[in-house]
Amino acid sequence: MGKRNLYLNNTPVEEARIIYKNALKGRIKMECEEISTEKSLGRMTKEAVFAVCSSPMFNAAAMDGIAVIAERTKGASEREPLELKKQEDYIIVDTGDPVKYPYDAVIMAEDVIECGDGTVKILEAAAPWQHIRPVGEDIVAGEMLLSGMHKIRPIDIGVLFSGGITRIKVVKQPKVAIFPTGTEIIEPGTEPREGDILESNSRMFEAMVVSYGGAAHRFSPIEDDYKKIKEAVLNAVDHFDMVLINAGSSAGTEDYTVHILRELGEVLVHGVAIKPGKPVILAVVKEKPVIGLPGYPVSAYIGFENFVKPILAMFTGEHGYENNKEKAVLSKRLVSSLKHKEYIRVKVGEVDGRLVASPLSRGAGAAMSLVRADGFCVIDQNSEGVEAGETVTVELYRSLSEIRHTLVSIGSHDLILDLIGDFMSCNDPGIYMSSTHVGSMGGLMALKRGEAHMVPTHLLDEESGVYNLPYLARLFQEPMAVVKGVKRIQGLMVQKGNPFHIKGIEDLTKCRFVNRQRGAGTRVLFDYQLKRLNLDPSLIAGYDREASTHMAAAALVASNSADAAMGIFSAAKAMDLEFLPLGEEEYDFAVPVKYLDLPQMRSFLRVLKSEELHRRMDQIGGYQYDLAGEIWYL
Amino acid sequence: MGKRNLYLNNTPVEEARIIYKNALKGRIKMECEEISTEKSLGRMTKEAVFAVCSSPMFNAAAMDGIAVIAERTKGASEREPLELKKQEDYIIVDTGDPVKYPYDAVIMAEDVIECGDGTVKILEAAAPWQHIRPVGEDIVAGEMLLSGMHKIRPIDIGVLFSGGITRIKVVKQPKVAIFPTGTEIIEPGTEPREGDILESNSRMFEAMVVSYGGAAHRFSPIEDDYKKIKEAVLNAVDHFDMVLINAGSSAGTEDYTVHILRELGEVLVHGVAIKPGKPVILAVVKEKPVIGLPGYPVSAYIGFENFVKPILAMFTGEHGYENNKEKAVLSKRLVSSLKHKEYIRVKVGEVDGRLVASPLSRGAGAAMSLVRADGFCVIDQNSEGVEAGETVTVELYRSLSEIRHTLVSIGSHDLILDLIGDFMSCNDPGIYMSSTHVGSMGGLMALKRGEAHMVPTHLLDEESGVYNLPYLARLFQEPMAVVKGVKRIQGLMVQKGNPFHIKGIEDLTKCRFVNRQRGAGTRVLFDYQLKRLNLDPSLIAGYDREASTHMAAAALVASNSADAAMGIFSAAKAMDLEFLPLGEEEYDFAVPVKYLDLPQMRSFLRVLKSEELHRRMDQIGGYQYDLAGEIWYL
Repeated sequence: MGKRNLYLNNTPVEEARIIYKNALKGRIKMECEEISTEKSLGRMTKEAVFAVCSSPMFNAAAMDGIAVIAERTKGASEREPLELKKQEDYIIVDTGDPVKYPYDAVIMAEDVIECGDGTVKILEAAAPWQHIRPVGEDIVAGEMLLSGMHKIRPIDIGVLFSGGITRIKVVKQPKVAIFPTGTEIIEPGTEPREGDILESNSRMFEAMVVSYGGAAHRFSPIEDDYKKIKEAVLNAVDHFDMVLINAGSSAGTEDYTVHILRELGEVLVHGVAIKPGKPVILAVVKEKPVIGLPGYPVSAYIGFENFVKPILAMFTGEHGYENNKEKAVLSKRLVSSLKHKEYIRVKVGEVDGRLVASPLSRGAGAAMSLVRADGFCVIDQNSEGVEAGETVTVELYRSLSEIRHTLVSIGSHDLILDLIGDFMSCNDPGIYMSSTHVGSMGGLMALKRGEAHMVPTHLLDEESGVYNLPYLARLFQEPMAVVKGVKRIQGLMVQKGNPFHIKGIEDLTKCRFVNRQRGAGTRVLFDYQLKRLNLDPSLIAGYDREASTHMAAAALVASNSADAAMGIFSAAKAMDLEFLPLGEEEYDFAVPVKYLDLPQMRSFLRVLKSEELHRRMDQIGGYQYDLAGEIWYL
Repeated sequence: MGKRNLYLNNTPVEEARIIYKNALKGRIKMECEEISTEKSLGRMTKEAVFAVCSSPMFNAAAMDGIAVIAERTKGASEREPLELKKQEDYIIVDTGDPVKYPYDAVIMAEDVIECGDGTVKILEAAAPWQHIRPVGEDIVAGEMLLSGMHKIRPIDIGVLFSGGITRIKVVKQPKVAIFPTGTEIIEPGTEPREGDILESNSRMFEAMVVSYGGAAHRFSPIEDDYKKIKEAVLNAVDHFDMVLINAGSSAGTEDYTVHILRELGEVLVHGVAIKPGKPVILAVVKEKPVIGLPGYPVSAYIGFENFVKPILAMFTGEHGYENNKEKAVLSKRLVSSLKHKEYIRVKVGEVDGRLVASPLSRGAGAAMSLVRADGFCVIDQNSEGVEAGETVTVELYRSLSEIRHTLVSIGSHDLILDLIGDFMSCNDPGIYMSSTHVGSMGGLMALKRGEAHMVPTHLLDEESGVYNLPYLARLFQEPMAVVKGVKRIQGLMVQKGNPFHIKGIEDLTKCRFVNRQRGAGTRVLFDYQLKRLNLDPSLIAGYDREASTHMAAAALVASNSADAAMGIFSAAKAMDLEFLPLGEEEYDFAVPVKYLDLPQMRSFLRVLKSEELHRRMDQIGGYQYDLAGEIWYL
């Protein structure tokens, strides 16, 4: 099986981090550079900054009016107004003008009576220093404006300039080299050949390094060649403060990274008790941190967050990037192993005034689940899991305010759902839809548990032949509504040219089928049809193979990994497949009446009835939307 | 008095915003540009993004091992191992390698027994599609990756590249022209002449525009010249999306802005019921928003936040910049007028588990109070104020986690306090000191009210001649400690050459004095000395004039706005004044025993005892630190 490197350790996360940080202490120096103040936004002061001049730099009028000598205004009153002569007893000043000796008070314009010849009258004496901003009132020269290790904000820039600081010493951004490796890896934009993988992790790392205050330098992918990778690392440690190597950190045939790092320096940790993210390598080469990160996108992300971010902070002094932590109710039981700390992506919704966290796919390859998630629920290594209904702490990477303005939809998937969400956030900025696809029945169960505002559903009641309504009547006690959606065509998706000559469900015994998951409306419909035809599911190869959306099923057929699947017209069309219509079905939205008036629901209803959406449905084809947006109360 | 423009309206804030936004609706268009995905971090998608390829692009091995034809592995068991031939029955695959027809399952390397000649044995049949990531498992071509109006994060960049998106349509950043105006305004870096004011607001605006997603273009200051300002505005509206004019928005002699804007376009609002920030101008010139902002830094900041930021959002679609809002207990009574909505800067500390908001200076000129503040307490126009002890909502612009790691010091000021705070954040990143200067007695009162962790104090007990301890014994019931600080020299600060030949306090009757505020330890000492000399305060000109720190008092003497002040040696030295020592005093820190163990207090104590601090005190001079850091329990 070639030279495999099966010996990954399972060091606990915190221990790994301490081992590595200790090894780097004394090796990492926070460096300093001087830059011009106007470019310092978001940078960290390296040392305290002291004002070189005061603000105001002189005693200044705080009002528009006249500057006078207070002593000389004594005795002025309504009965005995006092006349003052221009340039002799007073001068005109505007706010901000200097007030110099012998003048020591300002009288507001409103309180001055002009006599026409430059002479004015006042009806009240001026107190010394009234309406004068004394020199240094805001900033005194020599005063500390900002302490060291302070992250510069716009207001700080204003004060720095007021205090005469035009150049400032800030913490230097660490230069981080990023090496994607792998013979199968190609640059996005080039035409992929079979087996190629588009390189994307390094681009994500680049953005993460920048977000966390570093300067990223990404190199082109290096093929799996011991010598080439070794040379690249050796060269990089001379020119960069930190080196990241992506992929090649697991235990596969071509995973050279750990061997190279052992040869060049010291590998302190290889393999951490974290899921996803286990095959992390923490090494030091020529006094520089070199980190190997796993290739799966989610593992890569979590590995970065746990091991690259804290090391970057040793260079930058940044401490403000912690995710917001909130308590939420867990919607589903989570089982976790004692072997690792586990990061579970969750969707978080505010439903009925409480935050609910719903776990998403746990696969390490599911980058889209990171995009769709609102945060993580972290299960400690010494925990075997959490029961549904328990309160958990969620590390949010979306703001609570966004979450509060999000319509939580859980249920069946249709392409139009994404379009609706898109139109909602475009038309009503600050309003969002979050949709999770678990099939119609899964959605209704989630709604019952209080995890969603709405369920897209297309469940056929076998007895009555009616869609959706009978299910809601059966399942819910509370007042429910059905927001009418679309009629759409269900059918069989087969490869172009229909090589297996499939004409209907009865022909599926001749080919490789791929089914939808249990609880999906499409599967309910399929089972209904099998029953009608009296066809034994075990005769259909692939009846137990499950895809979780129409598009995923269509993609399997398109890639010749299956020969037929059941699905909607729009998915077949999107994947350029042939489509054999079986019949129409009703795709609606189940909504508890109490949610109909939420702002995000109103935004949803507006979009559902909009011409803009209907036009898009016409373009895609296969939809009838005559009733879209009508509300039927049960 | 020249042509003054005294007629400012007092439009309520929300009304002003609605009037202006309505006027701009239809005039502001959110524009679009296409950029490369790798540069898209932090940008806003203009429209939904759909994947152009699937990920994985093919069925891929999810494990290192062998790819087999599931059908041919049937019957394998521990009793009857099955032999498979290389290239015929199986091929070797690493994680991520394609698995093509006829292969349809992967067996993990661990479960394969090598026989040496390329033949392997397996002990269990493979289920079809086991350990295979199906094509499109993560991303299906045609799937919506991101909706429109979505702010791009690092993980999104990863997914975009995986989905084959190398260029992306994002919302164009609005170009904002910023014009500082005023004849007295000079560029920082140039040598100021008398009456000059260093321009700083426009630099702050620049940074604010950038922070809120715009592209800022700052122009050099324009003098107060009607024609020049008019030309600049006319030219700018042709080339920029929005124009900001700073200063000249009040009602002074040279405040041309509003006249110019009336001539060029329409002024919708001039004067808003907001404090600070009243003289805002909201105008439209040639369909473009043109905003006049006040000159005082705090007014400028608040004007920007209330009127520029929401207009920028109309261009950018940004909605995620709201300040975090938290409930806090107000430490002091706040009186506000019904004439305006008031923004009061507050320090916020977490003391004894509750958040306490302490109001800072309310002056519009005090930019440093914005730097020192943690947030705003907003008092609505229809409220006359809030009582001490009431719960208020604070808009925080510092994170709650930073606030929780902050040592809250309220009391007497000394330069070393700033140095200690600086060393704390440099040595213990993530730990902060916030210090408010209200004098020793003011600090002790704040401590009693539960607003602080610590009070820097130098209060002489007249009867015993002992510093600090008698005050604590008298004022506090709870267990208190005194953390010993420094001995420092108090004396009179006079101008270089001592022109008034002041030898002691008795000579202050000959000159202009500036005193410290009531409750300041220095004032207590001064009053004690007057009493000893039997000197009537009313004989001293300026006894009632108050400066609130040593440095502020020294600055008034240095600028010849006063002839003498009482203060510490270090302040006199910093301002290059002559210093007549009057005696030593003890500057200590009063701390409730229960706070001695807080992490931020421990950081403080470490710094207080550190050589690094002692070296700095030696450099400044006038300090004795033999006991620094010793804890005396009462």
